[in-house]
Amino acid sequence: MFIGDVVGTPGLKMVDLWLKSFIKKHDVDFVVCNGENAHHGKGMSLEALNQLVAAGVNVVTGGNHTWSNFNFFDTLKTHPQVLRPLNYPKGTYGKGYGIYKLPNGLGDIAVVNLQGRTFMYSIDCPFRTADWVIKQIREQNKDSVKFIFVDFHAEATAEKIALGWYLDGRVSAVIGTHTHVQTADERILPKGTGYCSDAGMTGPHNSVIGMQIKSATDRMLYQTPHKYECAEDDVHFAAVLLSLDHSTGKTVGIERIFYPEYDRGVV
Amino acid sequence: MFIGDVVGTPGLKMVDLWLKSFIKKHDVDFVVCNGENAHHGKGMSLEALNQLVAAGVNVVTGGNHTWSNFNFFDTLKTHPQVLRPLNYPKGTYGKGYGIYKLPNGLGDIAVVNLQGRTFMYSIDCPFRTADWVIKQIREQNKDSVKFIFVDFHAEATAEKIALGWYLDGRVSAVIGTHTHVQTADERILPKGTGYCSDAGMTGPHNSVIGMQIKSATDRMLYQTPHKYECAEDDVHFAAVLLSLDHSTGKTVGIERIFYPEYDRGVV
Amino acid sequence: MFIGDVVGTPGLKMVDLWLKSFIKKHDVDFVVCNGENAHHGKGMSLEALNQLVAAGVNVVTGGNHTWSNFNFFDTLKTHPQVLRPLNYPKGTYGKGYGIYKLPNGLGDIAVVNLQGRTFMYSIDCPFRTADWVIKQIREQNKDSVKFIFVDFHAEATAEKIALGWYLDGRVSAVIGTHTHVQTADERILPKGTGYCSDAGMTGPHNSVIGMQIKSATDRMLYQTPHKYECAEDDVHFAAVLLSLDHSTGKTVGIERIFYPEYDRGVV
Amino acid sequence: MFIGDVVGTPGLKMVDLWLKSFIKKHDVDFVVCNGENAHHGKGMSLEALNQLVAAGVNVVTGGNHTWSNFNFFDTLKTHPQVLRPLNYPKGTYGKGYGIYKLPNGLGDIAVVNLQGRTFMYSIDCPFRTADWVIKQIREQNKDSVKFIFVDFHAEATAEKIALGWYLDGRVSAVIGTHTHVQTADERILPKGTGYCSDAGMTGPHNSVIGMQIKSATDRMLYQTPHKYECAEDDVHFAAVLLSLDHSTGKTVGIERIFYPEYDRGVV
Ligand SMILES: [Fe+2]
Ligand SMILES: [Fe+2]
Ligand SMILES: [Fe+2]
Ligand SMILES: [Fe+2]
Ligand SMILES: [Fe+2]
Ligand SMILES: [Fe+2]
Ligand SMILES: [Fe+2]
Ligand SMILES: [Fe+2]
Repeated sequence: MFIGDVVGTPGLKMVDLWLKSFIKKHDVDFVVCNGENAHHGKGMSLEALNQLVAAGVNVVTGGNHTWSNFNFFDTLKTHPQVLRPLNYPKGTYGKGYGIYKLPNGLGDIAVVNLQGRTFMYSIDCPFRTADWVIKQIREQNKDSVKFIFVDFHAEATAEKIALGWYLDGRVSAVIGTHTHVQTADERILPKGTGYCSDAGMTGPHNSVIGMQIKSATDRMLYQTPHKYECAEDDVHFAAVLLSLDHSTGKTVGIERIFYPEYDRGVV
Repeated sequence: MFIGDVVGTPGLKMVDLWLKSFIKKHDVDFVVCNGENAHHGKGMSLEALNQLVAAGVNVVTGGNHTWSNFNFFDTLKTHPQVLRPLNYPKGTYGKGYGIYKLPNGLGDIAVVNLQGRTFMYSIDCPFRTADWVIKQIREQNKDSVKFIFVDFHAEATAEKIALGWYLDGRVSAVIGTHTHVQTADERILPKGTGYCSDAGMTGPHNSVIGMQIKSATDRMLYQTPHKYECAEDDVHFAAVLLSLDHSTGKTVGIERIFYPEYDRGVV
Repeated sequence: MFIGDVVGTPGLKMVDLWLKSFIKKHDVDFVVCNGENAHHGKGMSLEALNQLVAAGVNVVTGGNHTWSNFNFFDTLKTHPQVLRPLNYPKGTYGKGYGIYKLPNGLGDIAVVNLQGRTFMYSIDCPFRTADWVIKQIREQNKDSVKFIFVDFHAEATAEKIALGWYLDGRVSAVIGTHTHVQTADERILPKGTGYCSDAGMTGPHNSVIGMQIKSATDRMLYQTPHKYECAEDDVHFAAVLLSLDHSTGKTVGIERIFYPEYDRGVV
Repeated sequence: MFIGDVVGTPGLKMVDLWLKSFIKKHDVDFVVCNGENAHHGKGMSLEALNQLVAAGVNVVTGGNHTWSNFNFFDTLKTHPQVLRPLNYPKGTYGKGYGIYKLPNGLGDIAVVNLQGRTFMYSIDCPFRTADWVIKQIREQNKDSVKFIFVDFHAEATAEKIALGWYLDGRVSAVIGTHTHVQTADERILPKGTGYCSDAGMTGPHNSVIGMQIKSATDRMLYQTPHKYECAEDDVHFAAVLLSLDHSTGKTVGIERIFYPEYDRGVV
């Protein structure tokens, strides 16, 4: 199961409240969660990380906001359950992938965090970095790693979809984050890779991607800085649920979760 | 009903094949369709416009690619059923909104086309332009216009959602286009405006947002120009269906359409 | 005389030390100075403004960093000698142009501050805003305003040069700021407008545009946030000196000032 | 001697007319010239390359527009005197540095072409690529290479200056291109590297960076595509002249050339 960007205290509370029952209900073996906005909407903190882990999250991935909280850097360097995008240049704190043991003798899963470049920072190529890391994983863990999961933190749909096709058949799934809007394009690509452009935001939806509506609108209206304030209301849980085949490592089922549903009336 | 970006000849054929039966099945009164990529994936043409109209589309909206085909400019200036984003600066060809008669004495509907600025061109403010056009419509068409529909062609989810909140209660619906990926956030905002960040792409999905996979991936791998070639396979129909209340002009039902469904296996 | 971006305390000290002697030596009637980086390299403050005025500056213009120091907003709203770019959207604090009395019965001078949009914020069109303000000034101050001076704060050379040509013959001079590098293209355009793409930086040049070298290089190497620290050494004074014709309002002489000169050796 | 971006046929003619006399007058040993706009203002061609070589140019460097003319790719792959930015990703056509014999037994010179990323394409890191190539050159050509010259094709002044400081003492000179405006910051950095942010444009200056004024202004006014048309009038020759010390490989003199001078009147 992959949980989209958890935003601020409201998002953390939602995970705390709902995750365990989801895990039980859907018999989930492993939970990855993007946490780049968990610390009051901007960056990560050790406290937020601990809350996510306590709630049942196995690995917390990051993104461009991973670097927003200078106090988190020590944890980033050493904590085994936290990742930042792998394709940040050499010399950056933290690690970009990890190999984790699954329960019930299911073998290991590699979790890879990558970040896009279109409309974002000029970091290393996510495509070539993906090639490198897959080779790395395959060579060093011949038999144990059964699954490779990729969180691709990116803005442009073209870049996300391109990476999905690029890795089709080579990884278990590529799920996007960063736009904070869940996309309806979850699918199994022809060679067996699960794909969804964005898992969406677990956090306050009475907001503009997690930020209070007035601050966000003022930024656009005046094009000047307005204080970031995390929103609070209308909290939803957004995630993507994957069924992976143990013998092939491929996705055999993919389903979006968005709870509770928005009001959609009747057509 | 609003149909997302129709891409190339495959998209046009799909509309031609399916639209009439959808209209019948769902008893649709009015069809708006974004056509900025209808002409071989880039821009519009009179021919494509005629095909869309013949298939049952009432109004064709545009976006940043509206200007890609110089040969279309004469049609853009004069054809009553084609729009381009209203907030392009004064002096730009074409018109950005229109008022159209609904069938069965349902009154008139105003269709407004706006474009975002984040990661796009520095055109006029979409928020202030929306204020202006709503005032315009209300003052000049006091009684006849029952509904206002907005196609917001934009890249950033924050800008799209901000406009949704900004116009909540003032227009019937704000539906986004441009990313070519349908989002799962269709909802009725608290004051009655229907909202969805992106209606998605009606066109070939064995592609990167409509473009052949290899060209798109090569652009990202090498950061050099590679010929745009429209993809051809796996054509899907993407749209958003709205039920509007005749007395209030508000949305009472919103539903995404994506046909046929992607392969999602079983979770 | 127009002084380029004054950066931090070192820049302020340089102005304090040298401006009065420059004014005397070159018999300068009026001094405009860009101060967007005067407050420790980021934004403005009342204290920095007072120092500039005490040193002989008549008007302090701004730019994108004007909004960096929230504490300055009250001064920005009320102080007659401080400007921010005029083409920020309606509702923004402060004013974008002013009319000032010249000494010795030379009449009035209008100072206009504009900002570019290429690679910067999506504010109002600088070209159309220039048209508007020139009309404004001409209509409301028929006889008194003899000169119009424009500080165009912009990144892209194309946008700067385009505005120079656009205003040629309609204003006394268009001088650019923001890149912090003085350009060697000072010239009198065919219809009499003085032009220079950038006046350069009055501040510490043992730096990357005013910032400490290591922080700046680290930002580029790692693409992560690194604290902004204002540099201190190798302070230079950068300005453009203009001779304007009293009867036509046009530029009859333009000269770059950069003091002291860099080390250039002997070719 | 390094000649800034040569634009179109007017630029080529200027080089043809003036270069040989400059070479003679200043006793120039080696001529590098940026040619990314030599082919009608966009890209390169074999014909333009031949004209530059015939006029006395030893090496032609490139930039983002190198890829604008598809017909040039064969020449780019094979011609020894043409370079493109070295830090384009692996797999890109052409080469990014070369080692050339100087006349009169002066040894060899390495010419390196790099491109910036701020406001440009997300290619490989220019700083790390510079480290790599310097090591390469030093290891493989221990004794013969006396000088290393870098053409840094970049938009942002911060990135250019940062590379200058980064390479100070390690290369003979870093000269910028791409903005088409000559900067007045030519200097010898403390450890002996010659530096200038931009060599400027050799081409028609009755233009917006080489493009006809009306097309350029229309693009900004309307934010829609307008045909690129190369300007023709007011051709100037822009270059940077360097004196290098044979024993240390460092710059001992740096001088801008801009011929003929602009009209500057008298202050
Ligand atoms: Fe996020
Ligand atoms: Fe993010
Ligand atoms: Fe589109
Ligand atoms: Fe678009
Ligand atoms: Fe500045
Ligand atoms: Fe600035
Ligand atoms: Fe160029
Ligand atoms: Fe260039």
